[in-house]
Amino acid sequence: MGTGMTVTAPPLETVRVELGPRSYDILVGHGALAQLGPRLTTLLKRPRVFVLTDTHVEAAHRARVEATLAASGISSDWLALTPGEATKSFANLDTILDWLLDGSAERSDVLLALGGGVIGDIAGLSASLMKRGMGFVQVPTTLLAQVDSSVGGKTAVNSPRGKNLIGAFYQPQLVIADTELLATLPPRELRAGYAEIIKYGLINDPGFFAWLEQNGARVVALEPDAITHAVAVSCRAKAAIVAEDETEKGVRALLNLGHTFGHALEAANGYRPDLLHGEAVAIGMALAFRYGAKQGITPADDAERVRRSLEAAGLAAAIPGRQGGPYTAARLVELMQQDKKASGGKVPLILAHRIGEAYIHPDADLASVEAFLSGELLEA
Amino acid sequence: MGTGMTVTAPPLETVRVELGPRSYDILVGHGALAQLGPRLTTLLKRPRVFVLTDTHVEAAHRARVEATLAASGISSDWLALTPGEATKSFANLDTILDWLLDGSAERSDVLLALGGGVIGDIAGLSASLMKRGMGFVQVPTTLLAQVDSSVGGKTAVNSPRGKNLIGAFYQPQLVIADTELLATLPPRELRAGYAEIIKYGLINDPGFFAWLEQNGARVVALEPDAITHAVAVSCRAKAAIVAEDETEKGVRALLNLGHTFGHALEAANGYRPDLLHGEAVAIGMALAFRYGAKQGITPADDAERVRRSLEAAGLAAAIPGRQGGPYTAARLVELMQQDKKASGGKVPLILAHRIGEAYIHPDADLASVEAFLSGELLEA
Repeated sequence: MGTGMTVTAPPLETVRVELGPRSYDILVGHGALAQLGPRLTTLLKRPRVFVLTDTHVEAAHRARVEATLAASGISSDWLALTPGEATKSFANLDTILDWLLDGSAERSDVLLALGGGVIGDIAGLSASLMKRGMGFVQVPTTLLAQVDSSVGGKTAVNSPRGKNLIGAFYQPQLVIADTELLATLPPRELRAGYAEIIKYGLINDPGFFAWLEQNGARVVALEPDAITHAVAVSCRAKAAIVAEDETEKGVRALLNLGHTFGHALEAANGYRPDLLHGEAVAIGMALAFRYGAKQGITPADDAERVRRSLEAAGLAAAIPGRQGGPYTAARLVELMQQDKKASGGKVPLILAHRIGEAYIHPDADLASVEAFLSGELLEA
Repeated sequence: MGTGMTVTAPPLETVRVELGPRSYDILVGHGALAQLGPRLTTLLKRPRVFVLTDTHVEAAHRARVEATLAASGISSDWLALTPGEATKSFANLDTILDWLLDGSAERSDVLLALGGGVIGDIAGLSASLMKRGMGFVQVPTTLLAQVDSSVGGKTAVNSPRGKNLIGAFYQPQLVIADTELLATLPPRELRAGYAEIIKYGLINDPGFFAWLEQNGARVVALEPDAITHAVAVSCRAKAAIVAEDETEKGVRALLNLGHTFGHALEAANGYRPDLLHGEAVAIGMALAFRYGAKQGITPADDAERVRRSLEAAGLAAAIPGRQGGPYTAARLVELMQQDKKASGGKVPLILAHRIGEAYIHPDADLASVEAFLSGELLEA
């Protein structure tokens, strides 16, 4: 293995998520999928798994997944849903639970989520509800899912009244983040996932941010050593925060850096696909740093470094200010006011004293936010 | 307060369920409901609760509950479902979640379950799913719910494919078991709940079983000191077992004493209301002791004491053996074989070395069980 002239992938990295009896491993790297069969064998009581996916992912990856399972003598039942956010519905939850019951799923069986955040979220919730909790393993196939949604146990479906309103905290037993699977992703989805990678540097790892400034292009180009390192560092960063605050009562809020602005942008845009979640978060992070700079909290140089770093990866770092478009300062502030924790004209924001020193600012003044956003939109 | 000639209720008992960060109190006794308002005040961020109940319970108890809430300045939103097991459906879960969202329920709000096991089970599951977990408080209004289903955090709805197949482990923040509320129960329901009280003596508390032999009639007559003691001891017994094994990986199985036989009887009878769950468990416990006696595990005298104790409370202790009825040894064993843990002609049963010394018998032989049941049916 790896002798002579053959170019080999870097070794897999293992990230341990420490949650007491709910601890688990994330295996990261090129070809990690080959470990799925062997690792499942140690989890399963009988050689059979339920695989939930979407039809796009099934077309791209089913053969490889079946091959690694077959090599370990594991058979599989498949259910492929329609790709897209609309799949995360209460009705589909019922469909999945019926499918599992029809297949005589037991607590000791494993439901494997093969896909992006949508599949991971609804699969996790289904697993948590099946006989009060069956086994759950994730094979995230998007960069966003590998560095964000498959770490930390948040599961959910949407309600007509809002996103992710119905859900549970439920941890997987294993996550396999095979960076080789990312090769089939459209470049825009890759970049959107990359925004969340930058976020971890901004929160508490200035060294990682500096590394991304040097190596971001290699990460987005999926060079094996660069993408493996970036995904592993990101998972480790999120795992550390989640280990400290599993059910989001405190420090876990730091993971929302860029998200209060970002969610307002997404909502104002009607969640249309011309602004992906990661793209909105990228703009939101740039805004959080510039708002901090305006308030004298964040050095202006740091806000500028954030902007450059995002733009270098092909991400927008400012509000797309089209004449007559959906984004106005008043509308964005109105949406921020609907934040669960907003009250009395104040909203909690994640701001930063500098790159790598984010903190929870509990009571940002919405009037000052609106003035700031008006200025941003004039410049855009 | 208790001076002169006034007959006063005994003081409330507090049972602490020790589950680390999920620990909570059960307040037991006549008039415990008066503590609801004051205790909620310490849990709530805003003076408002959501109350889920059924229409029977609403008619019997809404005025009292509203009075205690009003005395603490707490307003309430009510949803009253149809009484009965059919209410525990996935569709009603959706209805409840919509109702909570329409009422702008937040994680820090409390959903109060006012009712028996059906309401408690679906309310707990709804609370667990609402924004990944909102506050949850139970006011059980049946004896069965006070001593069993409101302790331990099992929540569920039914599937057309079986009972309680979709659910979660989710602990309440507070349980108020007001024994005065039991006065409106039909006698059969009271007796069915009493069967679960006897169960705790049989599992690991021979002194309590002996006390029930002396005081069972006073318990069923709802004499305040007797019913308060019986409910408090039962809750404490279940709490101790749940504290040791929250998610039923081991010792919690002891709580299934009488339930493997009992579930088979209920299923054979099509869950018809002429055999209540508690009635089936009573018969099941008598069967477990007599089967143990036949196998030389349990002293025959102990099996006889169990029978006498159940019959003294007006509970049947043998299979209702009607000619052409639903109960045959072959059918019952077939149903026991569908137990999740049955395999290879063996099934785990909870048996007892003597009264107060129950244990998990991992591999009861179904052929010997069938022979035993045939004998029982001939005698009936």
